[in-house]
Amino acid sequence: MIQPFDDTYYMKKALQEAEEAYDKGEVPVGAIIVVKDKIIARAHNLTEQLNDVTAHAEMQAITSAANFLGGKYLKECTLYVTLEPCQMCAGALYWSQISRIVFAATDLERGCRALGTKLHPKTKIEGGLLAEEASELLKRFFSKKRN
Amino acid sequence: MIQPFDDTYYMKKALQEAEEAYDKGEVPVGAIIVVKDKIIARAHNLTEQLNDVTAHAEMQAITSAANFLGGKYLKECTLYVTLEPCQMCAGALYWSQISRIVFAATDLERGCRALGTKLHPKTKIEGGLLAEEASELLKRFFSKKRN
Repeated sequence: MIQPFDDTYYMKKALQEAEEAYDKGEVPVGAIIVVKDKIIARAHNLTEQLNDVTAHAEMQAITSAANFLGGKYLKECTLYVTLEPCQMCAGALYWSQISRIVFAATDLERGCRALGTKLHPKTKIEGGLLAEEASELLKRFFSKKRN
Repeated sequence: MIQPFDDTYYMKKALQEAEEAYDKGEVPVGAIIVVKDKIIARAHNLTEQLNDVTAHAEMQAITSAANFLGGKYLKECTLYVTLEPCQMCAGALYWSQISRIVFAATDLERGCRALGTKLHPKTKIEGGLLAEEASELLKRFFSKKRN
């Protein structure tokens, strides 16, 4: 049976968001939030444009999804994000009680797993999906920035 | 010499913000950000009103201070907050590179120190100033909520 709306499909949507960030000169990270096969939030990093360290893709997606749902808890929701969440975003996800986090590239330096950020007991996290594509975009961004 | 603008003065301003949160039925936490003896941001918890887990006092204060400064780094700034920052807020403060954090009440369960959230090497943190006043307000809030 064909299952068009699988994790890979949604992560590709998150990668599209990351590419939008790239085009704006932002560190290219994108995020989407899905509930019952429906995308309810799309966001990409905007820290430079907004001059705001809190404007990570995940933070905006959490706010946007809560607006859509009319409640602040993201139960039964899945976040797809192209880079492993940092402490701030993982901390926000803790409060949101989100059901599942799927990230692409690992952040060994500032990622929530390396830094031991606590997630909510209800939250499952998994990484590595389309990690190469997400990493390549990040590498391309930082290499362009250096030159 | 009289020094009217000391840490206690600013923490009292943060407590005023916490009281505003209390009056709105929000978990009473207030925050202000000061640079060179000038208050550049005031905020209180608005998670219920905004239906948004990211609307902690500190997060709003960080965004507001960056707007005021026209840059996203809060160098030479001090955050006064009535409750020890959580992982999310400490993670945001990490990105902001803020110089100093002064908090009142300790949060042994969800505070950044208990959970080991990493702060920026440039950031100093200290707690306990007007802790009783801040704790009393929180206790009053939760006791009222239960009854």
